Amino acid sequence: MLQPPPAQPGMREDEVDTPALLLDLDAFEHNLARMQALLAPSGAKLRAHAKTHKSTVVAHRQLAAGAVGQCVQKVAEAEILAWGGIADILVSNEVVGDAKLARFAALARIATVAICADDPANVARIAAAAEAACVRLSVLVEIDVGGGRCGVQPGPEAVALAQAIAGSPHLRFGGLQAYHGRAQHFRTPEERGQAIGLVVDDVRRTVEQLRQQGLECPIIGGAGTGTFEHEAASGLYTEIQAGSYCFMDADYAANRGGASAGFRHALFVLATVMSATRPGLGVVDAGHKAVAIDSGMPLVWEREGVRYTGASDEHGKLEGGRVSLGEKIRLVPGHCDPTVDRYDWYVGVRGGRVECVWPVSARGAMA
Amino acid sequence: MLQPPPAQPGMREDEVDTPALLLDLDAFEHNLARMQALLAPSGAKLRAHAKTHKSTVVAHRQLAAGAVGQCVQKVAEAEILAWGGIADILVSNEVVGDAKLARFAALARIATVAICADDPANVARIAAAAEAACVRLSVLVEIDVGGGRCGVQPGPEAVALAQAIAGSPHLRFGGLQAYHGRAQHFRTPEERGQAIGLVVDDVRRTVEQLRQQGLECPIIGGAGTGTFEHEAASGLYTEIQAGSYCFMDADYAANRGGASAGFRHALFVLATVMSATRPGLGVVDAGHKAVAIDSGMPLVWEREGVRYTGASDEHGKLEGGRVSLGEKIRLVPGHCDPTVDRYDWYVGVRGGRVECVWPVSARGAMA
Repeated sequence: MLQPPPAQPGMREDEVDTPALLLDLDAFEHNLARMQALLAPSGAKLRAHAKTHKSTVVAHRQLAAGAVGQCVQKVAEAEILAWGGIADILVSNEVVGDAKLARFAALARIATVAICADDPANVARIAAAAEAACVRLSVLVEIDVGGGRCGVQPGPEAVALAQAIAGSPHLRFGGLQAYHGRAQHFRTPEERGQAIGLVVDDVRRTVEQLRQQGLECPIIGGAGTGTFEHEAASGLYTEIQAGSYCFMDADYAANRGGASAGFRHALFVLATVMSATRPGLGVVDAGHKAVAIDSGMPLVWEREGVRYTGASDEHGKLEGGRVSLGEKIRLVPGHCDPTVDRYDWYVGVRGGRVECVWPVSARGAMA
Repeated sequence: MLQPPPAQPGMREDEVDTPALLLDLDAFEHNLARMQALLAPSGAKLRAHAKTHKSTVVAHRQLAAGAVGQCVQKVAEAEILAWGGIADILVSNEVVGDAKLARFAALARIATVAICADDPANVARIAAAAEAACVRLSVLVEIDVGGGRCGVQPGPEAVALAQAIAGSPHLRFGGLQAYHGRAQHFRTPEERGQAIGLVVDDVRRTVEQLRQQGLECPIIGGAGTGTFEHEAASGLYTEIQAGSYCFMDADYAANRGGASAGFRHALFVLATVMSATRPGLGVVDAGHKAVAIDSGMPLVWEREGVRYTGASDEHGKLEGGRVSLGEKIRLVPGHCDPTVDRYDWYVGVRGGRVECVWPVSARGAMA
């Protein structure tokens, strides 16, 4: 069952039940506007990544601010967005399995949808799903631009797969998916710029080879919050797939310099000190079931000297300062995406008051 | 919203949609029976920990096998269990905040409930909640037996808190909560036995000092899957709070020797190979949103040489063997509790067929 919302509009922030996923609406709106301002000179469009926010409400706010659509990683996420009125959705990932592909194809009746592929046999299964659903599906070729994970090799291998897609009466060649995930977290702007320079070379070469075969790319997509300024400036990418920019997290904040430095922390986990039996130690009610630690411990927000030093399932240790029993503490998650996925509700706050609660409607949408 | 179940009874295991939380029912039932057999000679009772399974169905199976009740860490978990017909529930944790305490007190009308405390001011708030709800609440004193987290010191500090509880007309002294979490994961049986030897000394001394003040302990509770044989053999503990024993995970399996060695892996994440573009690399559709990595990467089940070497949000890398696109792979989670908490459904399998789907009804119950 769903959990009840931990707050109601009108409450003071210190009345919010914990643990709660807090969204600072001023910072969030600042981030949406800033991304659009940063992208405007380049001509690249924002297709914001819903794997970060898992929410139709956030998706609609991003579209209202100027995004052209949304990305997702999973068919189940695409369903939630399409059912919630999002009109243009790209599954920026491979999808394998006939049942999932049938669900994906069904969405083409109510939204503009596209999907990625890196295998010719799977392209045939996508075509079969499209045929069975009497729709024509857009398929992008994912190329491996340094992640070493999914994707065919740039160049001839990508061209061959694009030809297989374009050759099917049930499919449409949708362009290239070229995302370098690890590069988002390279710490200096020089490292990030250098990595994306190589990515852009791969993409440019592949686009040219496709063109020689008569294949144009409707979408050339990729990039994230750490590197998007480089992809946007390339003049090659048509769509930027940043997700975390709207919330930010401790890991992205540890990146030095670059455009992403101007985004503000908008997402917090609100926790309560539930034990404080000795000086210098506080225990909060938010452990790693409440805040993701895959990219490091959360930061303690605006509490001089206090650090979150360790997480167990339901407890977090605070050390290095005085905290008192019952006190509420804001934590900046180390990693926003998996933290959001642990909650059923956002609590939107502004000026110390709860302004709204929004459902995390695609929470757990992993299929 | 809830996600739909990834399977239906009668399906073959290889038809289950992924990622899915798979429960091997033979192994699960073996584990329930084995725990009861191991505890029988000691006289200590099992109060199984629901923070592991988050499920009224699993709780009822444990009670049917001989457990006397359930533990939880959160009031929201206690609510789900009480609403689902579990008659005896201990919140083995401190609860701070009047709204939460009011919710807890309300449960005393439909179940036998108890709670822990480590602070006199909070004991007064529990008493106020009990008075407002016109109920009398059992409160256990948590003592710090080596975890260095919650709990008062064993001995006089614990006695003083117990007297404060016993002195309230709205409360009942419920006994001692004495759990050493870290000791569960000490790798050798000697280390675990030595650590629990010290715990038992602390508990014995505190029980004697309480008795000198006329206070008997209805419950002396603690222990987990890694150490319970020692607490049970002490003759002192009345209740064992093991949780993971029913599922097991890679981290507990890395413990050497001891009684827990006889439990079997019952919990798996079923994943699909969704990309396999080069020899020696497979990518599955289960990253760390689908399988917890706080206690290490998952193990690959019964696939010679294949290892899960890295997790990103939605992808897991398999290396060291041949896997093919579309293949389904069982993963043994590094840590069962937070893995379960990411799912809405268990898929119970036996002999290669789906026998049942059960809701993870307390998924996300963090408040």
